[in-house]
Parts: sequence; C-alpha cells; structure tokens
Amino acid sequence: MANFGFRHLAVVAPYAPMWREARSAVGAPEILLNAAETTSLGEAVAASTLVVGTGTLTYRKPEQRVVTLPELAPLVGRELGRSGRVAMVFGTEKHGLTRDDLSYCHILVEIPTDARQPSMNLGQAVAVCLYELATRGDSGAAPDRGDVELTAAPSGRLELLAGVVEETMRAAGYSPRTMQAANRHDLRLLLRRLGLPERDLRRILGLFRQILWRLRHAAEGGGKAD
Amino acid sequence: MANFGFRHLAVVAPYAPMWREARSAVGAPEILLNAAETTSLGEAVAASTLVVGTGTLTYRKPEQRVVTLPELAPLVGRELGRSGRVAMVFGTEKHGLTRDDLSYCHILVEIPTDARQPSMNLGQAVAVCLYELATRGDSGAAPDRGDVELTAAPSGRLELLAGVVEETMRAAGYSPRTMQAANRHDLRLLLRRLGLPERDLRRILGLFRQILWRLRHAAEGGGKAD
Repeated sequence: MANFGFRHLAVVAPYAPMWREARSAVGAPEILLNAAETTSLGEAVAASTLVVGTGTLTYRKPEQRVVTLPELAPLVGRELGRSGRVAMVFGTEKHGLTRDDLSYCHILVEIPTDARQPSMNLGQAVAVCLYELATRGDSGAAPDRGDVELTAAPSGRLELLAGVVEETMRAAGYSPRTMQAANRHDLRLLLRRLGLPERDLRRILGLFRQILWRLRHAAEGGGKAD
Repeated sequence: MANFGFRHLAVVAPYAPMWREARSAVGAPEILLNAAETTSLGEAVAASTLVVGTGTLTYRKPEQRVVTLPELAPLVGRELGRSGRVAMVFGTEKHGLTRDDLSYCHILVEIPTDARQPSMNLGQAVAVCLYELATRGDSGAAPDRGDVELTAAPSGRLELLAGVVEETMRAAGYSPRTMQAANRHDLRLLLRRLGLPERDLRRILGLFRQILWRLRHAAEGGGKAD
C-alpha cells in the first residue's frame, strides 16, 4: 500500500492477538497505525461508492459484473473523477471472500492468472491490484462538479435503505423467516446494481418509511382497512 | 511466476543449504524443480537477447536507458515478436543488483512507486513485473521470420566478443592491469548499447581474432614489424 501511495486501510474483525502485536511492533508502518478496525465489512465500506471484490472466481458463479484488472482501472478513475470513493476488498489468505462479503461488492475484479495456477498469494495480489490502480486508475481530470449529484450513494446509505426495505417486507408478511437471509443477500446485490444516486435513494427511503409506518399503523389498528 | 505463466527460472549462486531445502521440500513447485542453477549472472542470461534489470534506482546513477514498467511491456513484446529471448533480473531482497550485475543489462526498469516508500518487497516486485508483462507484453503478432537476422545477439555471444576484445586490449598493451575491471564493465555496457545482430557480431569477432593473432604472432617474433 505504501509503495503505491494508498493510505486508508480498514481491517475487518482481525484475530485480536496478532493484530495487537502487528500494530504495537517497533517501527510498525504508519498505514497499520492509522488503520481502521471494524467488526463487519458493511461498516468498513460504508463510505464507499464503489466496492470492488477480489479473488479467484473459478470455483463460484459470480452474481455481479466481473471485470479483469486492466478493465478495472478506467472504472475506478471515472468513479474518483466524480468524487466517489472506491474500496478494494481482499479476503483472507486461505478462504478469500465469503458469499456474504461478496454481497457488499458492486463489481468483482479478476487478476488474469494462468489457468494452471489461478490462486495468488494475498500480499502479491494486493501489490498487483494497487500497482494497476496507481498506474492506470487516475481520474485523469479534476472532479466534474456538475456530475457530483449523480455519484452512486455510498455503501452505508444502501445498507440503511436495505434495512428499511427488509423491515417493510417483514411487516407486509412478504418474507417468510427462512427466506430472510437469502432476501437480504439479493437485496444488497440489487441495490448495488442500480447505482442509485443519493437523490433517488432519499426519495425511495422516504417512500418505504411511509409504507412501513402505514403497515405498522394498520397492524396496531387491528388490521383495519382505511 | 506460476500465476502469470512464466516457467524459466535461473538462480544465481544461491545459498546452498536453503536452496537444497527449498527444492527438496514435499510439494515443491515445478518451477523450482526445473530451475537452472548457475554460478554467475552472465551464465544465467547467456541465451537472452534482452536483459532487463530491476530495482530501486533512487540511490544510483544508471548507465543504461531506464524505462518505467508500463513502458517496458511493448519493448518486451517487440523483442519476443522477433524471436528474441527476454530475461528479467532481480537482485537479493536486501541489496538488489550489484553494479557488476547491472552491466549485463540492456535496459533497466523502474516500478513507479511512491517517493516516500520506493523500496518494494522482492516477491511483490516480481509479481507486479510479471503481471505487467503477462497482461501487456505480448508480441501481438507471430514472429516475423524476415526480421530474425536483425535480432540482437544473445548475451553469451556478447560476452565471448567482450572476452576477445579484452584479450586484444591486453595484448596491445592498451589496458593497464588496474583499469581492466573498469574497462570490462564499460565494454559490456557498450556492446549491449549497440544491439549487435549475430551477423555483425560474427564479423567483428573475426576481425578481433585476426588482430589478436597478429599481435601475438608479432610478440612471438620478437616484436618484428611486418
């Protein structure tokens, strides 16, 4: 990260003893000292408008758009150019990203590796991704202020909306308890696919809050119609 | 290397106990098992027509052309396109390439890193370089047979010529003993700068052998002229 000028590291639910040791070591790099520590991935990417998942995709069927690393750089450049914030998400060395982790990602990126040896060492995968973005991911232009309104809403706002929609589903009896995890997963992916700008997100959020209030009000009123 | 489809590894004068252990480990990767082991860098790159040195250049004044990694890929592609062989040379983790190592290199490549943290971990530097070459270093065309004659002669042939030129210098009393190492260094760099094709190399080699024979013959004859 330091080699390529990246500064914001967030570590999700690290193994406490090792994390403590790494940070308190003499000469621990600044990036580690300033790293954010979160309990969930959702929290770590809350401010990001474009969340990019990484990893080997050979053994799972991706649900999002997949781009190769060389294709990613211009997308990141465009996002930065319109004042967005981009997060790169890396999984653990052993297991990569879980299905739940992936549901927070707008797109997935694949490093074009040899089919006989697709799985990369974590540190090397990070280096290759950050090299590519540092070299070719510049916005190439100053932020276009007229465009700001159309930046996709950050991940945390999408989560808020997803929560309200979910509550609404539940209140409307739409989502049987056994389906809730699956619905949340699909909902997350759907909201990221839409690329909602904050303006639209606010409107939809308002609508669902209104519906939810009505549903609850109706329930409290004993199910009376009108 | 395996991630990006590279297969030919040569290890120069490795520390024997560690090298033996690495190769004999259960599940040692094929690249390691098939690696060539040489005692000198000259031997390792003897068959290469383009030798690329890597490393941080901030603390030394390079004597060759320096390109950035993104600029390197098309050069490598062109070399492969005309049936050349390209070697990437990496130094040790701690000290990088020595001045002597660098004299075997036609060009030097620099990974564009942040000025505050220019020095990279060896494994990550290798990954980044090979990613770049695998992704953007293709020749893009089948070898052009008509062009083969103009491929630069491989490194081993240049060394042979350098040896004969050196002997000639000595025989001619041109090179005082104290200057010999410096001259060899400059000669290596000069021959690489010229980019001699085999055809020309053969001609020059013939010329110097002839001169050398004459010089020795003259010496044997007691310094007689004619």
